[in-house]
Amino acid sequence: MTVASLMFVDIQGSVSAPAGFRSAGVACGIKKSGGLDLALIVSDAPASSAAVFTTNKALAAPILVSKARLQASGGHSTTIVINSGCANACTGPDGLRTAEAMADAAARVARVDPSQVLVASTGVIGVSLDRQKVTAGITAAAAALARDGGAAAARAIMTTDPFPKEAAVEVTTPAGRFRVGGIAKGSGMIEPLMAPPQATMLGVVTTDAQISPALLQRALTAVTDVTFNAISVDGECSTNDCVFALANGASHVAITEREFDLFVEALRRVCEPLAIGIVRGGEGATKLITIEVAGGASNDEAKRAARAIANSPLVKTAVHGADPNWGRLVAVAGRAGVDFNLERARVRIGDVELFAGGRPFDERAPQASEHLQGRDVTLHVDLGTGGSGAARMWACDLSAEYVKINAEYRT
Amino acid sequence: MTVASLMFVDIQGSVSAPAGFRSAGVACGIKKSGGLDLALIVSDAPASSAAVFTTNKALAAPILVSKARLQASGGHSTTIVINSGCANACTGPDGLRTAEAMADAAARVARVDPSQVLVASTGVIGVSLDRQKVTAGITAAAAALARDGGAAAARAIMTTDPFPKEAAVEVTTPAGRFRVGGIAKGSGMIEPLMAPPQATMLGVVTTDAQISPALLQRALTAVTDVTFNAISVDGECSTNDCVFALANGASHVAITEREFDLFVEALRRVCEPLAIGIVRGGEGATKLITIEVAGGASNDEAKRAARAIANSPLVKTAVHGADPNWGRLVAVAGRAGVDFNLERARVRIGDVELFAGGRPFDERAPQASEHLQGRDVTLHVDLGTGGSGAARMWACDLSAEYVKINAEYRT
Repeated sequence: MTVASLMFVDIQGSVSAPAGFRSAGVACGIKKSGGLDLALIVSDAPASSAAVFTTNKALAAPILVSKARLQASGGHSTTIVINSGCANACTGPDGLRTAEAMADAAARVARVDPSQVLVASTGVIGVSLDRQKVTAGITAAAAALARDGGAAAARAIMTTDPFPKEAAVEVTTPAGRFRVGGIAKGSGMIEPLMAPPQATMLGVVTTDAQISPALLQRALTAVTDVTFNAISVDGECSTNDCVFALANGASHVAITEREFDLFVEALRRVCEPLAIGIVRGGEGATKLITIEVAGGASNDEAKRAARAIANSPLVKTAVHGADPNWGRLVAVAGRAGVDFNLERARVRIGDVELFAGGRPFDERAPQASEHLQGRDVTLHVDLGTGGSGAARMWACDLSAEYVKINAEYRT
Repeated sequence: MTVASLMFVDIQGSVSAPAGFRSAGVACGIKKSGGLDLALIVSDAPASSAAVFTTNKALAAPILVSKARLQASGGHSTTIVINSGCANACTGPDGLRTAEAMADAAARVARVDPSQVLVASTGVIGVSLDRQKVTAGITAAAAALARDGGAAAARAIMTTDPFPKEAAVEVTTPAGRFRVGGIAKGSGMIEPLMAPPQATMLGVVTTDAQISPALLQRALTAVTDVTFNAISVDGECSTNDCVFALANGASHVAITEREFDLFVEALRRVCEPLAIGIVRGGEGATKLITIEVAGGASNDEAKRAARAIANSPLVKTAVHGADPNWGRLVAVAGRAGVDFNLERARVRIGDVELFAGGRPFDERAPQASEHLQGRDVTLHVDLGTGGSGAARMWACDLSAEYVKINAEYRT
């Protein structure tokens, strides 16, 4: 099989679009607003599982529990429970017991071994998660589990997100069809730096393909690197970031080494719009910024420069104001700690080259400003080393609204 | 001689407070506002000189010229010329010729060898600096040179700074008295990471102490590390950062190895208020944040954690909103890439401990919020490693005003 885009069709739905998955989102009183705050996702058949977790050293209780259970099951999780409105982070031994209780309650309602449950939380750090509310929520969610429950699950994991993030694709192969679906949430404390098998956004991807836990992990790690790990809202890597993947084989389409690239592409086609959705819905965001860096000494150096640009408040505010201040791009590239050659560096905003050969083309600023007035902005920087290192990152602008949201988060 | 604080007296004035220095600030039309935009500082006697320059790889033309001339004179600069309103960065060979012409014009009016001139620029990147305006400004500044010209010089180097930064001390030693004075400017693109003999804020310190160029450089490097290199407004290290030091010996007080610590302390007493002034006057800043990190595996690791906190938009917005969101401090310390132990970590806001032993003390949040309502805020984080690594950084809050300033900088 070769990877041909003809094989992939975007479909409606998300985590329960693949066969054999049910999901639900309910309100159990964790969010003061009374909004949906508990999601349950269940595979009705045994499944392979994989995960990536945050590299933050202040790990939240649910991360500790999920890591342990993923290891205990050997990558055979079937059930995912997630609450929003409280991160259950920095909550001590009692918080850990609550995360354990949450996983155990989900195991009971799903009638699976407790090792088969993965748990995640998102919200304010340092506040106790109410055990009674969350377990009552799990019972209610179990009763609500449905094939079309993905939309509610996507809403139930939101915090400051302005809209839910769902995606699904159907892949046609010579051996049959399989589906991949996913949900994710942002929208602050977002610059996930996730490592296997260890991510602050939350994401769940499901598939009815049949794949081993090891191969699923490899695919998730590879795709995370170019999707969830290639976004930044505010440069903050959380205590709670994670992405879970479940594969239950209900499609009877087997993914082996031979089909691996195709599976990775299917996974990427779900994770990329989810990741971009997180950025587009980033706190206070009004624009999606795609950052393309080329001419780096290595891909790693290009990524480091792209990351510095993605997190530069001066770049993000200039984009917010539609100011084609390319000098800030040069300044950030120059301080990114990577090989950089000013004389050979080039900067484009959209299709408008504003700096090349050590010289500005400021007469083109009005065209660049026009590009920046759109909702989708592209910034290109060539580091000028002559190398072929390249990278892409997605970020958002920095607005007064971001400040407002985060100066008043808990009040 | 021992360093006793009794020996140090804060005095009025700045760069021409030490004997044998004259300075001036004039308007020569570079700033559209018509404000002061050219500063000239001259030692009437031969002087030792030292400098620290930005580590950004996109070096502005004046940085290249100053590096070359400092080396050519062997650390014997007598004249400093600085313009604001235009950074003369990313301006190609023509910008380099303008920076050379600027230095040469200053050498002519000061009647010194061209190698004895240091030059700096600050303002928008990528815009040509008008050679006629700047040379006419240098002629006008030469005519205005005066013992009391420091206040005008301090104003002439300002860009978005809300107030000028000046400081001076007089030091009484058994061998006589000497003075150290200085000026500095911010207030955006500020997280100087300067290395000897290579800073985006600008600073000038002068002294009438008698000291060799090598010893002056050692002192400037040491002091920069705990002052200008320990501040961040927005995490941006500029193409134009530099601090210059001139020492003309007019006091006849000689600084040798024996008096070195005393001299460093005098220099620190001038540079620290200048550095803090830059942060207090940071773009959109309403609060000065002092970040104290302890319990690190090393001073370097503590500094890295302090720097991550100083640059965290979530910490800076929480402080702006007087929200004692200590969880964000834990999250940032956890992602700073340094050794961190959640169970033994401690967080204090002002004198109020909010997290220790893995547990929150959220009932103390109102006291912490009270502290955060002041203009001077202190955040303490113990990384919990049991090590003795410690560091201090100064930062400011992130306000909607910062966004406004930088979204509209060139419009």
